[in-house]
Amino acid sequence: MKTMDAGLFFEDFQTGRTYETGGRTLREGDITAFAEVSGDHNPLHADDAYAAAAGFGGRIAHGVLGLAVATGLLNQRGLTRGTLLAFLGLTWQFRLPVRPGDTLGVRVRVASVRESRRPDRGIVVLAVEARNQTGAVVQSGEFTLLVRRRRAS
Amino acid sequence: MKTMDAGLFFEDFQTGRTYETGGRTLREGDITAFAEVSGDHNPLHADDAYAAAAGFGGRIAHGVLGLAVATGLLNQRGLTRGTLLAFLGLTWQFRLPVRPGDTLGVRVRVASVRESRRPDRGIVVLAVEARNQTGAVVQSGEFTLLVRRRRAS
Repeated sequence: MKTMDAGLFFEDFQTGRTYETGGRTLREGDITAFAEVSGDHNPLHADDAYAAAAGFGGRIAHGVLGLAVATGLLNQRGLTRGTLLAFLGLTWQFRLPVRPGDTLGVRVRVASVRESRRPDRGIVVLAVEARNQTGAVVQSGEFTLLVRRRRAS
Repeated sequence: MKTMDAGLFFEDFQTGRTYETGGRTLREGDITAFAEVSGDHNPLHADDAYAAAAGFGGRIAHGVLGLAVATGLLNQRGLTRGTLLAFLGLTWQFRLPVRPGDTLGVRVRVASVRESRRPDRGIVVLAVEARNQTGAVVQSGEFTLLVRRRRAS
């Protein structure tokens, strides 16, 4: 059995350091699947004519689908593989529409780190930007994560 | 063709007023579907033994799946049917795990409203709480929405 490398422990996160994920092209089927799992069937995401009349040119992805894909790309990057204890919270701005065919990639910067009262874990805040294939930042914000320490100190 | 009633316009949102959505029971298949569409295959959401060892007792839902379901319940409530111009951003805390079989419901309170520079729209901030079947708040935060005005003033 192949052992996966562990991700970063709390002590490994250096403020200001950046990481990039791979990319993912969003398909129409992803929007349909997200409408189903979320239950959000707003016609902005399903009806080209309605979305065009609303000024978007055609159907757009749910904002939270972009966020979901960002979390997936980060997970696949393996930064906190086996070391993530909890996703505590986030702030997030939906800046530009994401459309079927757009390719998203994520860049994170370690914004801050702070110790927890418990010696086996710490809190890491990542500044997160999701960009499309033109380099435009379509969504951005901060993720607050609870991450294992390598050893109690 | 049945015409759906329009949702609330900017002028209709009164600070402090609350609204409740219906409920939705989260199934194991929802977690599997969300792992697929997000690309987040963290074993906390797929592997009962791993999630138990991490202290969760068994596999838990992705945090962002809970958020996605909250947006879906709100959409189904129809509050901003036909009047929502954009989801601008959010703040969100993941407070308690959500497990397969949990039933989520959402309560929103109009936290604040403010006019936009453009006379045909305004900004509405909703304080949002997602509760499970025991009444515990599992996730909460604020959604900032751009909503149509009934008429320009």
